[in-house]
Amino acid sequence: MNTASSIVPRSMIAIGMEAPGGPDVLKPQTRPVPQPAAGEILVAVAAAGVNRPDVLQRQGGYNPPPGASDIPGLEIAGTVVALGEGATRFALGDQVCGLVAGGGYAQYAVVHESNALPVPTGLSLIEAGAVPETYFTVWTNVFQRGRLQAGESFLVHGGSSGIGTTAIQLAKAFGATVLATAGSDEKCQACRELGADHAINYRTEDFVAATKAATAGRGVNLTLDMVGGDYIDRNYEAAADQGRIVQIAFLNGPKATVNFSRLMLKRLTHTGSTLRPRTVAEKAAIAAELQEKVWPLLDAGRCKPLISATFPLAEAAQAHRLMESSAHIGKIVLTI
Amino acid sequence: MNTASSIVPRSMIAIGMEAPGGPDVLKPQTRPVPQPAAGEILVAVAAAGVNRPDVLQRQGGYNPPPGASDIPGLEIAGTVVALGEGATRFALGDQVCGLVAGGGYAQYAVVHESNALPVPTGLSLIEAGAVPETYFTVWTNVFQRGRLQAGESFLVHGGSSGIGTTAIQLAKAFGATVLATAGSDEKCQACRELGADHAINYRTEDFVAATKAATAGRGVNLTLDMVGGDYIDRNYEAAADQGRIVQIAFLNGPKATVNFSRLMLKRLTHTGSTLRPRTVAEKAAIAAELQEKVWPLLDAGRCKPLISATFPLAEAAQAHRLMESSAHIGKIVLTI
Repeated sequence: MNTASSIVPRSMIAIGMEAPGGPDVLKPQTRPVPQPAAGEILVAVAAAGVNRPDVLQRQGGYNPPPGASDIPGLEIAGTVVALGEGATRFALGDQVCGLVAGGGYAQYAVVHESNALPVPTGLSLIEAGAVPETYFTVWTNVFQRGRLQAGESFLVHGGSSGIGTTAIQLAKAFGATVLATAGSDEKCQACRELGADHAINYRTEDFVAATKAATAGRGVNLTLDMVGGDYIDRNYEAAADQGRIVQIAFLNGPKATVNFSRLMLKRLTHTGSTLRPRTVAEKAAIAAELQEKVWPLLDAGRCKPLISATFPLAEAAQAHRLMESSAHIGKIVLTI
Repeated sequence: MNTASSIVPRSMIAIGMEAPGGPDVLKPQTRPVPQPAAGEILVAVAAAGVNRPDVLQRQGGYNPPPGASDIPGLEIAGTVVALGEGATRFALGDQVCGLVAGGGYAQYAVVHESNALPVPTGLSLIEAGAVPETYFTVWTNVFQRGRLQAGESFLVHGGSSGIGTTAIQLAKAFGATVLATAGSDEKCQACRELGADHAINYRTEDFVAATKAATAGRGVNLTLDMVGGDYIDRNYEAAADQGRIVQIAFLNGPKATVNFSRLMLKRLTHTGSTLRPRTVAEKAAIAAELQEKVWPLLDAGRCKPLISATFPLAEAAQAHRLMESSAHIGKIVLTI
């Protein structure tokens, strides 16, 4: 804390784990409060979003990138309580939300000022804590990498997940025809309420046939997929000529047997990305576009995070149990 | 022949086949000389390039697109002998080469004037007849779809094929570091003579390891692949972060079991295309870029087609046998 700070304690409660395992390995621990390095801000965390990669990390399958905190948690919202050297974007007392490479499940977290954004007008801190991970992910994959254009059709799998509920709202706000898959009629209804033009219950319908039917047989222009496995070949089948498929996770596994002739004959583009290992500068570039193009929509209430459940920080294990049950619709948030 | 023509007979010799099968099904037949429709030109063919898709078509696996001639042959060079209505780009007697959707193995062929280009300075008609298919294919896949940039690394499989020999020369001319795979030391030597910085004998070396070694461990920025099968997973492994892979054929088959985690973690782009089914307008757009950016290189002798063998039109079966043996280096051309 080089240039300015409120009164900040030396230690804090954070969620740690002694070894990978089930939800119960997540336990409150006493940790030193992190110090903001140059360009960073220290935030007194009010809310920390829970995301699928946190579950993978807990299971031992997704280690933090070099230099990142071992405490889980990729997004936070709260109040700025200290500024690192040269940090000028926010003032002490400002309410911010931000993307972190780890360390979110804690009373205090550091975030680079360029990876933080003001809390959108009208959002609570709990809602703001549910914004960064899904909004950064959807923006960079759907709009930057996937180049979604107004008038195109867009399919998101896992439509009722945190990513799905965000993708539906943003794709709709930017003028796409939106298709979403989900695993129950209740979840499909939630997708429609968020703006999806077509919601497909993948337990009772073949999403390829439903997608073709919803697009007059042409197939879909862009697919955002976090399922993988046998969905990959089916995504190629459901795609329109020149369609793009952006892969952001593999809930059904990354290995698949695929017939690539469709990729060539329809001139598809299959790509993907993960957010966490990217540099602060890369995340800052996403943040800048979000602030310019998406924050006005959040400020105006044209989109907002859908909160499924909140848990006190100490009950992180419960939050993970809910995430793994897939019973939730929208985001799960820890409150501090 | 609406507006102008030389004396053109009514019938011609062309290569046809009564049923799909081995090379011997290709037989000289008497056919009517085609008539140029609006915007088309009639060419007295002097040379017709032989390409892998011709072999697939002969085997019954690659039918002509709707409206195309059933006569094999995707590229020709020769002399303009008639102009269809509104065709103004060339004059009677001009020497041209062009891309056709079929009908190349014949004494006369029609081509849309926008899909034809002047014979490059210094090239014989035989050489010019070996240009269109590979140059259109390489330009649209390597430079348009694959966005190859100066200073990047580029890997082409089948480096001694018609596509390979063209891709090596063009990638080198536009400032890339070029890697090529081929199936013998003699073919590797040919690749190096055409400008490849690294030639990899895939029978004695693992191309993934060799590619990593040649790129200081970073992997390759762009791969042009016509092999498919188990190469797909290995292409992902050999790729650099943000690498692109462009698929233009599947000599080893289109079906493969692939681990897609590399595609996501390295943010790869896997795409592909075929040339033949594209519209005349799409091919014209490729032709226009070729004339602007590549024809000056051909005119200056900075690149040129590598001719492996020529056969008289009536010996098309022999030409196909050589193509299927893969003993050739460069292009095979039929002469009329």
